[in-house]
Amino acid sequence: MLYILLKNFISERIYSMIENILGIDLGGTNIKAAVVTLEGRLVTDRTVETPPSREASDVVGAITALGRELLAEYPGIERAGIGIPGLVDLDRRLIRYAPNFPNWHDVHFKDMLMKELGIDVRLENDVNCFALAEHRWGAGRDTRFMIGLAVGTGVGGAIIADGELYRGRSGAAGEIGHMSVDMWGPRCNCGNLGCIERYVGEQWFTMAAREELDDPSIDEPARVSALAETGDERALRFIESRGEILGVVCASLIHIFDPEVIVIGGGISKAGEPFFRGIRKAVQERAMPLMAAEVKILPAELGTIAGAMGAAALTLAGDHA
Amino acid sequence: MLYILLKNFISERIYSMIENILGIDLGGTNIKAAVVTLEGRLVTDRTVETPPSREASDVVGAITALGRELLAEYPGIERAGIGIPGLVDLDRRLIRYAPNFPNWHDVHFKDMLMKELGIDVRLENDVNCFALAEHRWGAGRDTRFMIGLAVGTGVGGAIIADGELYRGRSGAAGEIGHMSVDMWGPRCNCGNLGCIERYVGEQWFTMAAREELDDPSIDEPARVSALAETGDERALRFIESRGEILGVVCASLIHIFDPEVIVIGGGISKAGEPFFRGIRKAVQERAMPLMAAEVKILPAELGTIAGAMGAAALTLAGDHA
Repeated sequence: MLYILLKNFISERIYSMIENILGIDLGGTNIKAAVVTLEGRLVTDRTVETPPSREASDVVGAITALGRELLAEYPGIERAGIGIPGLVDLDRRLIRYAPNFPNWHDVHFKDMLMKELGIDVRLENDVNCFALAEHRWGAGRDTRFMIGLAVGTGVGGAIIADGELYRGRSGAAGEIGHMSVDMWGPRCNCGNLGCIERYVGEQWFTMAAREELDDPSIDEPARVSALAETGDERALRFIESRGEILGVVCASLIHIFDPEVIVIGGGISKAGEPFFRGIRKAVQERAMPLMAAEVKILPAELGTIAGAMGAAALTLAGDHA
Repeated sequence: MLYILLKNFISERIYSMIENILGIDLGGTNIKAAVVTLEGRLVTDRTVETPPSREASDVVGAITALGRELLAEYPGIERAGIGIPGLVDLDRRLIRYAPNFPNWHDVHFKDMLMKELGIDVRLENDVNCFALAEHRWGAGRDTRFMIGLAVGTGVGGAIIADGELYRGRSGAAGEIGHMSVDMWGPRCNCGNLGCIERYVGEQWFTMAAREELDDPSIDEPARVSALAETGDERALRFIESRGEILGVVCASLIHIFDPEVIVIGGGISKAGEPFFRGIRKAVQERAMPLMAAEVKILPAELGTIAGAMGAAALTLAGDHA
């Protein structure tokens, strides 16, 4: 015990002297920060509450306080990245639109934070950050063509093309959650019909489970997983069948992108093996063998800190503003 | 008249002296060749029949004869590209698989043709060639992010990402025809359910028109277009509705890729304005306005020679083997 304490104490002193990078993941509920070595080792992480007002000035204030605290503790940090749940402008200086922060329009986040923190700051969409972390240090490491899916409240996507983030014309690429798997299916919040988000996004997953299992006590996906773990066959079958629907999208993504790996994270990925079994079953049934044979479909490895770690990884990518 | 003849005669003498590039488009029925200037002006084109045996040695012989003829007429040609209806290996030296040429497996096409023609030869998938031509010289010129769709017997796709062809892990990317728009829809030849090819590929388009219009005389898409042009409301509505189904895919592609333009060519695109009206209607109803507002959906401009011109364009791209 004393040995471990001493070892941690010495490690932290060493990490506080060498160059580290800082990543911050802004969410609607929490702000997470990660201090990471250049090799992707997580040195420390912190979580604070997102200011309830959600006003830009309050959020910048909260990120500044968190950033300054970590910069003081780890003096070797010269660069930071910030992941934002919204659309980051193409030059990555401002936030065009963020659904969780309805009053934000064209907020000059990069300049504000660079001024407050006194270091270089890079911005990127949060799902892109998640995918960058998984690609560099997680389940997608050592690949050049990766699709990342973050299945939580919504379904976010990100594309790594030949080792680089694919951003599209305006930086908005990767809205894989709004691929339609049933052109006459139920209406999604976005207005389209049959989007994959409408089947596996947490609220819809929960609603469908409540109906299909005829159990009004189901109030979150974890409840369905708990039922499945007790041996409830219908719960198990429900999770698999939702995995199969996501597998329809994965088969289409394999045909479109010819990727090496599809990495799936976010809250629903905790539904675990039955969910992934469903995905893989649908891919095997639907994707062209020549294209699908070598594609891996893997759970994300870095957990809820992936977004902050990926934000830190922004500082390592050459092409970022 | 004499002036035009004289002008053409002089132009051809000039083009025969300056540097041109040669493109050849191998199809199941015909082999097309295009001699193109470095600026994309079509100098001449030729079409010969694909050898009925479809054996690799016969096909190489036919391409060699056609190529030698044009090399003799246009001595400035030092590079050629060949478009192949199949999967070209990642190093673009051989053909892994071509459904129209069932006996071909790992045919060393590049080396065979370089030896026969005595010039540098580059290989690429034919739909990728179509998209390269439309991107460089056709409906997608002056854009960096383009999706190309070739809707004929099958539905092929190609992705131009930041000005370059996106090829994926093994070179097979862009199989957009096998995106499912209805996960429980009718079975496609590929085995998947509800692929877009199953709705707008020529045979399926024709079959559905025959059923929906209850007209057994319909034997090709052009017949439906002819009916629509005579004012047949049901034929018009059928073409629009098939356009709408392709529009479902276009909306998903806009969400995934954030492109500047989607260029649609191939036989079905001759269904013309009603088809494009259906596509644009579905995109307007289904795609997120923030992403779709500036995306153009355009008919291809270069016609049936696009594949050969794009094969020629291969010789201009830096990254080709």
